[in-house]
Amino acid sequence: MAQPFPVIGIVGKRGDPGVADTVRRVAQAIRDRDRQVVVDAATAHHLPDWSGDVVDRHAIGEACDLVMVVGGDGTLLDAGRAVALHDTPLLGINLGRLGFLVDILPEQMERTLDQVMAGDFVRDRRLLLTARVEHTDGSCAGPFLALNDVVIRNAEFARVLEFDTFMDGNFISRHRADGLIVATPTGSTAYALSGGGPVLHPGLNALALVPICPHTLSDRPLVIDGQHEVGIVIGATNRSQALFTVDGQESETLVPGDRVTVARADRELTLIHPPDYDYYNILRNKLQWGRGQRDPLPGH
Amino acid sequence: MAQPFPVIGIVGKRGDPGVADTVRRVAQAIRDRDRQVVVDAATAHHLPDWSGDVVDRHAIGEACDLVMVVGGDGTLLDAGRAVALHDTPLLGINLGRLGFLVDILPEQMERTLDQVMAGDFVRDRRLLLTARVEHTDGSCAGPFLALNDVVIRNAEFARVLEFDTFMDGNFISRHRADGLIVATPTGSTAYALSGGGPVLHPGLNALALVPICPHTLSDRPLVIDGQHEVGIVIGATNRSQALFTVDGQESETLVPGDRVTVARADRELTLIHPPDYDYYNILRNKLQWGRGQRDPLPGH
Amino acid sequence: MAQPFPVIGIVGKRGDPGVADTVRRVAQAIRDRDRQVVVDAATAHHLPDWSGDVVDRHAIGEACDLVMVVGGDGTLLDAGRAVALHDTPLLGINLGRLGFLVDILPEQMERTLDQVMAGDFVRDRRLLLTARVEHTDGSCAGPFLALNDVVIRNAEFARVLEFDTFMDGNFISRHRADGLIVATPTGSTAYALSGGGPVLHPGLNALALVPICPHTLSDRPLVIDGQHEVGIVIGATNRSQALFTVDGQESETLVPGDRVTVARADRELTLIHPPDYDYYNILRNKLQWGRGQRDPLPGH
Amino acid sequence: MAQPFPVIGIVGKRGDPGVADTVRRVAQAIRDRDRQVVVDAATAHHLPDWSGDVVDRHAIGEACDLVMVVGGDGTLLDAGRAVALHDTPLLGINLGRLGFLVDILPEQMERTLDQVMAGDFVRDRRLLLTARVEHTDGSCAGPFLALNDVVIRNAEFARVLEFDTFMDGNFISRHRADGLIVATPTGSTAYALSGGGPVLHPGLNALALVPICPHTLSDRPLVIDGQHEVGIVIGATNRSQALFTVDGQESETLVPGDRVTVARADRELTLIHPPDYDYYNILRNKLQWGRGQRDPLPGH
Repeated sequence: MAQPFPVIGIVGKRGDPGVADTVRRVAQAIRDRDRQVVVDAATAHHLPDWSGDVVDRHAIGEACDLVMVVGGDGTLLDAGRAVALHDTPLLGINLGRLGFLVDILPEQMERTLDQVMAGDFVRDRRLLLTARVEHTDGSCAGPFLALNDVVIRNAEFARVLEFDTFMDGNFISRHRADGLIVATPTGSTAYALSGGGPVLHPGLNALALVPICPHTLSDRPLVIDGQHEVGIVIGATNRSQALFTVDGQESETLVPGDRVTVARADRELTLIHPPDYDYYNILRNKLQWGRGQRDPLPGH
Repeated sequence: MAQPFPVIGIVGKRGDPGVADTVRRVAQAIRDRDRQVVVDAATAHHLPDWSGDVVDRHAIGEACDLVMVVGGDGTLLDAGRAVALHDTPLLGINLGRLGFLVDILPEQMERTLDQVMAGDFVRDRRLLLTARVEHTDGSCAGPFLALNDVVIRNAEFARVLEFDTFMDGNFISRHRADGLIVATPTGSTAYALSGGGPVLHPGLNALALVPICPHTLSDRPLVIDGQHEVGIVIGATNRSQALFTVDGQESETLVPGDRVTVARADRELTLIHPPDYDYYNILRNKLQWGRGQRDPLPGH
Repeated sequence: MAQPFPVIGIVGKRGDPGVADTVRRVAQAIRDRDRQVVVDAATAHHLPDWSGDVVDRHAIGEACDLVMVVGGDGTLLDAGRAVALHDTPLLGINLGRLGFLVDILPEQMERTLDQVMAGDFVRDRRLLLTARVEHTDGSCAGPFLALNDVVIRNAEFARVLEFDTFMDGNFISRHRADGLIVATPTGSTAYALSGGGPVLHPGLNALALVPICPHTLSDRPLVIDGQHEVGIVIGATNRSQALFTVDGQESETLVPGDRVTVARADRELTLIHPPDYDYYNILRNKLQWGRGQRDPLPGH
Repeated sequence: MAQPFPVIGIVGKRGDPGVADTVRRVAQAIRDRDRQVVVDAATAHHLPDWSGDVVDRHAIGEACDLVMVVGGDGTLLDAGRAVALHDTPLLGINLGRLGFLVDILPEQMERTLDQVMAGDFVRDRRLLLTARVEHTDGSCAGPFLALNDVVIRNAEFARVLEFDTFMDGNFISRHRADGLIVATPTGSTAYALSGGGPVLHPGLNALALVPICPHTLSDRPLVIDGQHEVGIVIGATNRSQALFTVDGQESETLVPGDRVTVARADRELTLIHPPDYDYYNILRNKLQWGRGQRDPLPGH
């Protein structure tokens, strides 16, 4: 039977020379297990003595059967967008601090690699969003792929943004707020959580619509099934523009009448975890759940 | 072709003689449309001159093809539990104030009935929960059926409740809080909303776990797919008891070590709505969404 | 004894010709009561046939003993900044919709004026903030006067803002958030409320510090006595700039290292209300408090 | 000049024999500094070989010039109520875990004692509340003294509680909620924080009114000046009783029509801190502020 993952890519945190050591160790560990190693060009830039294969980041998904990401959650999101077309699985090695997505500590890397090479791993498929913008002048932008969230926001922060939301074309509500976050389950523990949204378990096929600083106090987060298309139309009465971003990266300026459409993408992001992967364990660590339990607030 | 709904029941708000007039009008409207009318015994009590069929509330689901509920959302929940075994559809007539579930005003009743008799209606299926309690002494209680929520709560409100939550047996977290709400999408606009939970669209197959006044500020609402079983175990360190209720009705006392299990029931509740039913319209009305829009907060 | 308020100014909503009728009625009512009327130049622009006194808005505080504001809360805030130097009292006439600050309906205007002319009124003194910016390059901006709030905010909304807060020079905390609102009691029902802050009664000598979308979920609103000076220093690690605004009007760009200082101003804003003024009545109306009471959420 | 604090009491955590060692060490440290030591009877119970002075807890305030508390914040609250009549200052030694109030680690105890004996300390005066209950049958209860909070709560948790609030007899609002917390600044980081209330700096002369799980989503926490009297009247429509507690200790059952009055007490609680006492440092530690800063949420 064929060995899993014959070609393995490595993507390091952008612009951080400090990843070089860990990338070299990962590369050696891959070679030691008789797999071919490829790094992306930006990562190779930090490895002056690198003599192995190098490809552009956008090509690494096609070139590899697995991509190991060295960095934080942001680096994994970057890599995720790069490989999304080919749905190449990703394995995240953090640089010493656990992330929500990069869950393998450097010192666990070799052991995890052994497990993965032996086929002993968890495949964790994450819902992606696709978003597009239709401007009132007839031009369009997108589609953009989001792993975390699509956000619209008032461009001048002292002016409230008025916008309407729709589910499959049916009017949900008119909002007055700083903006709106449309989040995936993965994104529910990112910006949407700061905005007051709930945690969505990654196995849930759903989107969260989280208004940012809404004027109407009953304008609460809404969770809908992932099969529905979300529409957002910038209100005609706004005196200033709005901004649109995807995973905090792409950016478009929106004017009154512009329409943003967000729906579940027809592809997913695949994360590879060690066999003892435990989503809630990561959540407990990252959100410091349960820490207060031996230390109650006084008088209660 | 057979006419739909040959036998139609009526259930009125418990203990409210004020429903009599509306119940009589509904009964007459049903007879005018050549259907048989049945009322439940508690409702008949307010109709001294009633000469038609009467059954106990728990039997009305079996006796009828459709049950018209006259009252508020609480009355519909009551009726829903009564008919759940037979999944008899419910049609809610409110007494002058729109509810989340009883969405037909008395003056719209005749027209809606015409539409429903003509087969022109929306069938709205709502997820139910089933809950059971396993006491440490080996005794059990339940299963109980919930349309809104299952709630556990500290019995002495000055003492925090410590409990552990599980998803399909896997540990989620240890909580210190006043309690926990496990809500259906229907229940997400009831008590869970007061507790800070999100709105779940009724088409979403999901449960929300909403901690009540948690000590740990990061202990946020969690939404999981409806296929998972939720476990709650009362912590051994509690110095007081906990209470368990289902839709605010059933009640059990829990002691340290007791386990509550909540899962999606294998039956649903069916609501009948007029053809122009619009969930978000009801939400906008009930939550007064968009009201602030012509009246912004000053300076923003 | 001298009659109160011998010279009364009128300030209308900027850029809204629709205020002309109400302004004319107010002017006539003032003349009918043997007081002199002055309008500001921007308001006179909407009154082509105006033959009375006209002064620039910034001079109206000095020229008058009382200024009647015709418009919404935003117009009153504008007028408040214009008269702050002389602490001329303001009386707010709304254009048909009650505001938090402009609490007199047009049809109550004549009666209120009679009461005020007879000395039968409530004097409501509102705390003001003064803010200044010290840039790292040695330049300064301000002082600026705020009735509602001083806000700092990330200039690029996809990048979190890191900043430190201080009370009288003592470190409070390092925050990672979209920004921070420093609100007066008056401003506590404006933007700060959307950001999750508490309502501060106007009689309370206090400031609220409300983080906007904080990353740390325990980074909650903080209320301190009005005698303290608040310092905010933009963190050195930010990769983008921050924005500073006062009552949503003034705007400064902040770079890492810039410091904002906010303290209670040595002057106040004086509002004049009819003798039956009731702060909580306005709050109940504006926040729709108590509306849910005859209409409980189902099942609870 | 007279030496400060000639007689020093020790109060240990109730019912915890584990305090004995620390209490003995504190007693020895006091004697080493030529002061007289007194322990309360409950603490002496855990010290079978104790040969020194013993008084009842309620008498320790009168007997001593300073009381050292060994335990958690709950123990300090207990002691605070015991000494309130005499306003004897308290010094809190924790048992290894920092509290909001007991801020001295056992290993710092000797050094802190030296500083305090040398007059080098911070005197931290905390506002207290006094509460009383007027039953509709004419009977009364109280006054009760609260350091943290006065709470009213629905006795049957499945039934919402309806109640009216007043400030100095003026109607604030009608609430439908699980209950209401009236908190001091000290209590603002206790139960009120779990209920969504703001942090009130201890130097602020203010009370927070925090509704618990309110039905009306705009029913937000309210902060008022400490000079005002808060009234709470249990609504006549309630079908069940309410409970009243003070610092989680006293308990009264309330029926419809009963009135609770809460006001600032005419005495305060005095805490003694080391000279480098820093309120915000304790807050940062307890609320884990700033912990997320090197570990941003992904994608933002």
